[in-house]
Amino acid sequence: NSKLKIFSLNSNHKLAEDIAESIGTKLGKCSVTRFSDGEIQINIEESIRGCDVFVVQSTSSPVNENLMELLIMVDALKRASAKTINIVMPYYGYARQDRKARAREPITAKLIANLLETAGATRVITLDLHAPQIQGFFDILIDHLRGVPIIAEYFMQKNFNPDELVIVSPDHGGVTRTRKLAEYLKAPIAIIDKRRPKPNVSEVMNIVGNVEGKTCILIDDIIDTAGTITLAANALMDVGAKEVYASCTHPVLSGPAMERINASAIKELVVTNSIALSEEKQGGKIVELSVAGLLGEAIIRVYEQQSVSMLFD
Amino acid sequence: NSKLKIFSLNSNHKLAEDIAESIGTKLGKCSVTRFSDGEIQINIEESIRGCDVFVVQSTSSPVNENLMELLIMVDALKRASAKTINIVMPYYGYARQDRKARAREPITAKLIANLLETAGATRVITLDLHAPQIQGFFDILIDHLRGVPIIAEYFMQKNFNPDELVIVSPDHGGVTRTRKLAEYLKAPIAIIDKRRPKPNVSEVMNIVGNVEGKTCILIDDIIDTAGTITLAANALMDVGAKEVYASCTHPVLSGPAMERINASAIKELVVTNSIALSEEKQGGKIVELSVAGLLGEAIIRVYEQQSVSMLFD
Ligand SMILES: Nc1ncnc2c1ncn2[C@@H]1O[C@H](COP(=O)(O)O)[C@@H](O)[C@H]1O
Ligand SMILES: Nc1ncnc2c1ncn2[C@@H]1O[C@H](COP(=O)(O)O)[C@@H](O)[C@H]1O
Repeated sequence: NSKLKIFSLNSNHKLAEDIAESIGTKLGKCSVTRFSDGEIQINIEESIRGCDVFVVQSTSSPVNENLMELLIMVDALKRASAKTINIVMPYYGYARQDRKARAREPITAKLIANLLETAGATRVITLDLHAPQIQGFFDILIDHLRGVPIIAEYFMQKNFNPDELVIVSPDHGGVTRTRKLAEYLKAPIAIIDKRRPKPNVSEVMNIVGNVEGKTCILIDDIIDTAGTITLAANALMDVGAKEVYASCTHPVLSGPAMERINASAIKELVVTNSIALSEEKQGGKIVELSVAGLLGEAIIRVYEQQSVSMLFD
Repeated sequence: NSKLKIFSLNSNHKLAEDIAESIGTKLGKCSVTRFSDGEIQINIEESIRGCDVFVVQSTSSPVNENLMELLIMVDALKRASAKTINIVMPYYGYARQDRKARAREPITAKLIANLLETAGATRVITLDLHAPQIQGFFDILIDHLRGVPIIAEYFMQKNFNPDELVIVSPDHGGVTRTRKLAEYLKAPIAIIDKRRPKPNVSEVMNIVGNVEGKTCILIDDIIDTAGTITLAANALMDVGAKEVYASCTHPVLSGPAMERINASAIKELVVTNSIALSEEKQGGKIVELSVAGLLGEAIIRVYEQQSVSMLFD
């Protein structure tokens, strides 16, 4: 059997170490730095000839830097005779640019897929794509893992009374994910139905489902500027919810996000480490769950040529 | 005939405007900004269906941001039915990573060529590649223009006495370029022959050719941290040169470059606007020449399907 090697680039070093530890190995040696003018310099410091190589990198912020590190690393691995080059991308950046919503827009999520293939990637392992259709943007294999079971496990430990619990989707797009979490927690669901009664009038948060007196758990895939989720949390409290938890797989948390979350009715924000949290975001209302075990298991299954599909939901 | 459209991204906006002006047109309307999380957002604000489109962008610092802007723009242009997508890249970043100098290195200059083709570029117009072999990294057409005539024109206006002038190459790699400039100025050449007499002993600057009492013009393609060029200038003064000018096409000028130049014997540093100079680099010893006319002429010739080869040296 060929050898398994795991490398980390700069987006998620701690997660990469935890993945390696979870499967009883160490990270491969490489250095990923910058020349004086900002160009990326990569040195792979051990032979990988004939190996099954896994590279851990999220295309989170700084997204363009992280993506270029990944593409250049894949080029170097290919030229160093890796047998397979598997990209472990817990967060797939540019996933919201997945269609032409207006004339003359790029479809950057597809461009990224093409760039990864061109560089020489042979497989991608990713987590909770903003749109599952992005799987079809690839001609190489892609494994699409799910964060819901990890989030469910956390909330199960709280032993909420299912009769006093409701899982809430912040919009219509997230209902499937919401229902999945509700199944794990044996709770009903509710949906926030944002509507603009007239043009240029602000949106009204209409809540479909019964939340009065209940513990609500909001779930989304990405929380970016946190506008939607904090408005949703406050709307739930306004109609008599007992308390509101929020959760997501990918804590992008850009711009005003932290301020909004801190000022909102959200009691806890439960996220995964698919995107590394900068120090000032850690603690406070944020609870971070690890996807290291999940990704480690996926890596082992890919390496041993077993099915990964049980990790898909 | 199909229409000509020129767009500018964020690396060289002033140059792009000057190019458009030099051929009597205006830049196409587009906005290239960032979403809150740092992802690139591009809006092309006029129809380009069936047009011959030229996009002006150097992959200078911030190189990864500038490259991704370019790739995403090309994707958007392709999906908006451009007839041809011509990249005008005055400075080709990552050109120094053009071969495996050590084991397990990437060849990023080739990767970039592949990425541009994958995105949908149909032609590249560039200037003074660090290695002319990079032309062969492309399967699409590439026009390789030269900056020497523009630099020569500047020095010709100084009316140096050819008998008191010598053109100096800072290393063996640059002799062809040096000889070219010397032909324009009807002057002899000299070469700086750096040698390390023993391992771990500092380099000795040995000068091949006669520079005593003469005006020296150093020429290179890229000046990055300016170590080589300032050491060369000082070495020329040490052996009795009268004065030293330095010139290059691409003023990367990273890290300690400005400090070194200001502290050195260099009288003037003559560069082109292939890389936009930040405000603090402008003025002082630096003289900036424009390649707008050269690039404008290349664009018109490509658009009118005429030969570009007279611009090659
Ligand atoms: N990084 C980003 N931040 C905010 N909005 C984005 C980003 N990327 C794409 N979009 C926009 O988000 C919309 C798609 O999001 P969604 O409807 O949730 O799939 C499109 O209109 C995109 O223009
Ligand atoms: N951006 C950069 N800054 C400094 N050195 C670089 C850069 N990119 C590549 N190199 C190195 O420069 C050498 C090639 O330069 P040259 O010998 O002038 O062609 C190689 O050893 C590269 O590793």
